[in-house]
Amino acid sequence: MTITITAFESSPDRGQGLARDMPVRWALEEVGQRYHMRLLSFAAMKHDAHLARHPFGQIPTYEEGDLVLFESGAIVFHIAEHYPGLLPDEPYARARAIGWMFAALNTVEQPIVERDTATLVERDQPWFDARLSILDHRVRTRIGQLAARLGDADWLDGVFSAGDLLMIAVLRRLSGSGLLNDYPTLTAYISRGESRPAYQRAFADQLAVFTRGDSPTARP
Amino acid sequence: MTITITAFESSPDRGQGLARDMPVRWALEEVGQRYHMRLLSFAAMKHDAHLARHPFGQIPTYEEGDLVLFESGAIVFHIAEHYPGLLPDEPYARARAIGWMFAALNTVEQPIVERDTATLVERDQPWFDARLSILDHRVRTRIGQLAARLGDADWLDGVFSAGDLLMIAVLRRLSGSGLLNDYPTLTAYISRGESRPAYQRAFADQLAVFTRGDSPTARP
Repeated sequence: MTITITAFESSPDRGQGLARDMPVRWALEEVGQRYHMRLLSFAAMKHDAHLARHPFGQIPTYEEGDLVLFESGAIVFHIAEHYPGLLPDEPYARARAIGWMFAALNTVEQPIVERDTATLVERDQPWFDARLSILDHRVRTRIGQLAARLGDADWLDGVFSAGDLLMIAVLRRLSGSGLLNDYPTLTAYISRGESRPAYQRAFADQLAVFTRGDSPTARP
Repeated sequence: MTITITAFESSPDRGQGLARDMPVRWALEEVGQRYHMRLLSFAAMKHDAHLARHPFGQIPTYEEGDLVLFESGAIVFHIAEHYPGLLPDEPYARARAIGWMFAALNTVEQPIVERDTATLVERDQPWFDARLSILDHRVRTRIGQLAARLGDADWLDGVFSAGDLLMIAVLRRLSGSGLLNDYPTLTAYISRGESRPAYQRAFADQLAVFTRGDSPTARP
């Protein structure tokens, strides 16, 4: 069945792979599924046709036959549940891997997105510097706890899972912030994810949207 | 198998049911599973014994035999996957319900938690009023989109699911903010959730921790 996902027509991050289609592309590459892209302008994302797919007018969406899904975490979970390679078979290990998916998106991402939003929309406000130091402290607390749990392990819970995929996608939002400098095990963890062939294929494909400005179809 | 969850020993919200044990209690009541509570002081939450269960030193956790889970979304998902009543059987409807779980925790909760955090820790800052109006606008945008999708329906996608459970738990954080006043269909949606017998049992049990100050064990 043909899989179609949506992404930004023009990359807001200049192809750094920080948009939310990236974890979905990465997951599809990990499980070896072909997919088609539908690229949307910011205006098209707010049109009724797209709001029918995504009530919050965002990307990505996932279409497969009559199934329409939105929300990157849910799409990655759907892929992980239907194709082998992203969740362990053993029930308790599987439950813990799903736990890391929610932890990435609900607990670790929260202060990181708050910091991202501040740097985007509050940079010119008189309070920006004071708030940034509060936000940096909050991010450090969270990623420090994550680093303590990861320790020297390669992945969060044994083998690579959709939990690592989402966690690495969330942590990558901190690149350029300097906040990861004190956590070498986390930068190594991110690099470990980025060096996976599936990640590299997904990254190249999202970058091509920015550099070529046309509509690539992902490789098999 | 005995299920044990953790919660705050002394309720920070004075028993309003806004702590994250509430959706877990509610889910367990919906599927008719007994559970035991382990109540923790704020100090105990940062001890190694609890950090072994929850790397971010928060509540709730879920223990069932050798399985230890943290992250309320993951725990609700685990309950929904293992006991009937919280996810549809039809595969596409099930995937969409899981989509609403992620949407609640990753998309709708983000601006609501950011607003909560500001009212808790930035209230005395000189920028508080200016920021609050930015945050209110952001929350209104998100819940307006949610209201548009919900329309006049009882639940987000047909029958009540774990997606509604988490969405209602997230929206309840806005009680007292006044922000829900313009969205009567959302307040009706919240009330619809709160009037479910399972919700009411869960609410009474978390309230009892605050009013009685002892350690109740939830009813079957």
